[in-house]
Amino acid sequence: MKLNRKDILGIQELSVEEINLILETADSFIEVSTREIKKVPTLRGKTVINLFYEASTRTRTSFEIAAKRLSADTINISAATSSVVKGETLIDTAKNLEAMNPDIIVIRHSAAGAPHMLAGILRQSVINAGDGAHEHPTQALLDMMTIRAKKGGIAGLKVAIVGDIAHSRVARSNIHGLTKMGAQVSVSGPATMIPRGIEKMGVVVHMSIEEAIRDADIIMMLRIQTERETQNIFPSLREYAQYFSLNRKNIGLARKDVLIMHPGPINRGVEISSDLADGPHSIILDQVTNGVAVRMALLYLLTGGTS
Amino acid sequence: MKLNRKDILGIQELSVEEINLILETADSFIEVSTREIKKVPTLRGKTVINLFYEASTRTRTSFEIAAKRLSADTINISAATSSVVKGETLIDTAKNLEAMNPDIIVIRHSAAGAPHMLAGILRQSVINAGDGAHEHPTQALLDMMTIRAKKGGIAGLKVAIVGDIAHSRVARSNIHGLTKMGAQVSVSGPATMIPRGIEKMGVVVHMSIEEAIRDADIIMMLRIQTERETQNIFPSLREYAQYFSLNRKNIGLARKDVLIMHPGPINRGVEISSDLADGPHSIILDQVTNGVAVRMALLYLLTGGTS
Amino acid sequence: MKLNRKDILGIQELSVEEINLILETADSFIEVSTREIKKVPTLRGKTVINLFYEASTRTRTSFEIAAKRLSADTINISAATSSVVKGETLIDTAKNLEAMNPDIIVIRHSAAGAPHMLAGILRQSVINAGDGAHEHPTQALLDMMTIRAKKGGIAGLKVAIVGDIAHSRVARSNIHGLTKMGAQVSVSGPATMIPRGIEKMGVVVHMSIEEAIRDADIIMMLRIQTERETQNIFPSLREYAQYFSLNRKNIGLARKDVLIMHPGPINRGVEISSDLADGPHSIILDQVTNGVAVRMALLYLLTGGTS
Repeated sequence: MKLNRKDILGIQELSVEEINLILETADSFIEVSTREIKKVPTLRGKTVINLFYEASTRTRTSFEIAAKRLSADTINISAATSSVVKGETLIDTAKNLEAMNPDIIVIRHSAAGAPHMLAGILRQSVINAGDGAHEHPTQALLDMMTIRAKKGGIAGLKVAIVGDIAHSRVARSNIHGLTKMGAQVSVSGPATMIPRGIEKMGVVVHMSIEEAIRDADIIMMLRIQTERETQNIFPSLREYAQYFSLNRKNIGLARKDVLIMHPGPINRGVEISSDLADGPHSIILDQVTNGVAVRMALLYLLTGGTS
Repeated sequence: MKLNRKDILGIQELSVEEINLILETADSFIEVSTREIKKVPTLRGKTVINLFYEASTRTRTSFEIAAKRLSADTINISAATSSVVKGETLIDTAKNLEAMNPDIIVIRHSAAGAPHMLAGILRQSVINAGDGAHEHPTQALLDMMTIRAKKGGIAGLKVAIVGDIAHSRVARSNIHGLTKMGAQVSVSGPATMIPRGIEKMGVVVHMSIEEAIRDADIIMMLRIQTERETQNIFPSLREYAQYFSLNRKNIGLARKDVLIMHPGPINRGVEISSDLADGPHSIILDQVTNGVAVRMALLYLLTGGTS
Repeated sequence: MKLNRKDILGIQELSVEEINLILETADSFIEVSTREIKKVPTLRGKTVINLFYEASTRTRTSFEIAAKRLSADTINISAATSSVVKGETLIDTAKNLEAMNPDIIVIRHSAAGAPHMLAGILRQSVINAGDGAHEHPTQALLDMMTIRAKKGGIAGLKVAIVGDIAHSRVARSNIHGLTKMGAQVSVSGPATMIPRGIEKMGVVVHMSIEEAIRDADIIMMLRIQTERETQNIFPSLREYAQYFSLNRKNIGLARKDVLIMHPGPINRGVEISSDLADGPHSIILDQVTNGVAVRMALLYLLTGGTS
């Protein structure tokens, strides 16, 4: 089967069949990273550009490793060292890169919709590596891959997403994906962090973390942007932690075999206590491992690979 | 034919035969970037260091892609993250890199003459990727390649270069190259941006853009450094745009088949109107595409390749 | 012979046999960097991550070139562009990288002991590329390799190390290594730069540079951190240079065939005069060349290579 799609911009536009195709392809790539020689020649002679307008270790590194394990050439461009400082428009930067004949452009940008704009203009494939508070599709795909691997499937699972739902592209992409795949998703967070009308996305809103995680199969904690403390969105990190952290006291409300996820980087002691982040229920590092495989799968499928 | 030259420092010192050799070699590399597998093993086991003391997206990316498509190993060093901050001299930095046995060092530096100084000291090939207001030879070569491809040749063409001639290494390199290749070059810009004695380089100076572009086959617009607005070199961007931008009103003075060029990044609405930058006369993105091929040609020829 | 060791953290814990194994392996790699095709397939499909929390040109470049000449994939992470800015702990960053299945993590960090902490946690090999004022083992190994190559051995040589002994990881690693290998090491520097009890490391302390370098076979000058001028550790660079620089006046006290070393970057005219740095006794650039070979040897041995 082929992915009949030029770009990966968001989970919202992916069908269940497409998600399944990507996850199955990713499963088959997991093995490459465990070999003695972690490299296949699949993308030899292809050029992948990582165009990052926001700082990132894990996502950029994950894409770069994925591309290199497929033998692609990779080019990293970060806003700080680019001619972006000279005031060139994003479209002009992208058209210039297009003219150098890369095969895939991976973009992270603080503006929601930036990857969609580029995808509409460029003949190359565009992968959204996070755009503002909009979508982070590769994160949701690696999360679904991890849940599937651990639970055997997604349909019917009770998933709680807790934290700053309003500003989280991870939450939005996962809500799109998990509801599509048949999970029951509940969300929780301070009232200022729950967007109005979120119920229309098919989720149940709970005011307390306790209600949200009750009988959950999966708890997905979101990273708190500590910068927001000064923006009156929540009173203090301490108060946030008191009401919305996942910890030894409230974890007992979830199912005994609950799995704990986090997109990282973690604020230990704020959204999650250290013992849980490092404990037997945590699959946070599996998420990272699967991230490389999901990105390999996307690079492979977008350049015409078949499952 | 071989290029009997260790370094590419400027267009000034290149002969017509050398320029032709480089452009013909570049023509033959255009095809590599359009293949399914965009890679040839020509420079396998060679090391190319990009030593950039000024920020750059397009030039650094173009050199990096060129090197990778030839299978060379590439190392990027940018001043911001280098030990340059520790106050090491440029010569010491270069001698250290030399000791690691690279094959080619590509350098961009704000000081005119920096690449020449290194070329005189290092046993490796040095390519000038832009030195102060002095030369930017790879830009002029890609410009000449683009003109040749579109017009079938350079000799006899009327070329207008408009903008900040005094501070532009792109203008200087192109004036050297285009006059050598037999074009008639006219320049125009605010009086404060026209260097005294520029006529000695074989160009005609016009005070107005209209006179410069009249009957032009090629119009090359230069990027205005908007930082200069505050330096009393010109009164305001608005006034600059009023008198020296290329737009729908004045383009009619040029030949009907005029080609519009710009080294980028573009200040839309300042030196050129958006409709012209994106219109049918614009070959700005061809320049970018040809840039990769010209750089492949130079890396190839400097490591002993023959046409 | 194999190196039975997961990590290279410091010279202190290496045995004489291990040092000899590394130096002999490095000798055999010198030749690769002088070939027409400077590349061997030894580490194909391995991933080397350069995780640099401090700026560095030469060490990072040296590791990157070493890895590429062995055909490894390399990933550079520098603190400035990483999610370190988001306040993630070093351990979490490292565990995340581990989850992406690299083979070797090279780390430079301002905190002494950071590489040891990671080595204890990660299943991958860790190489210390400099940790605070503690150790810089690859520098000492390349220094010993250079001495051995020039003098035929290390045992019995008189080595003087001059400068800021107290804050120098280069000094500490070399003292461990050179004394282990049978050299007689003397140190000298301003009283504020000589750590108390340094004699216990097996070195002789001299208050003047003249006494330290008298009859020396090797003089190793350390870089002065010019930032310390304002920290009352020494009165002024001029006064420092007057009393502790190596120059034409005092060099005559050393042996006629003395070799002058410096880890770089050099402060010309401060710790060493330019004529000596560039003169016939200087082997400073040999150190840099050997640095690539030592790092190739370590990457090779840590991934299971045998001498």
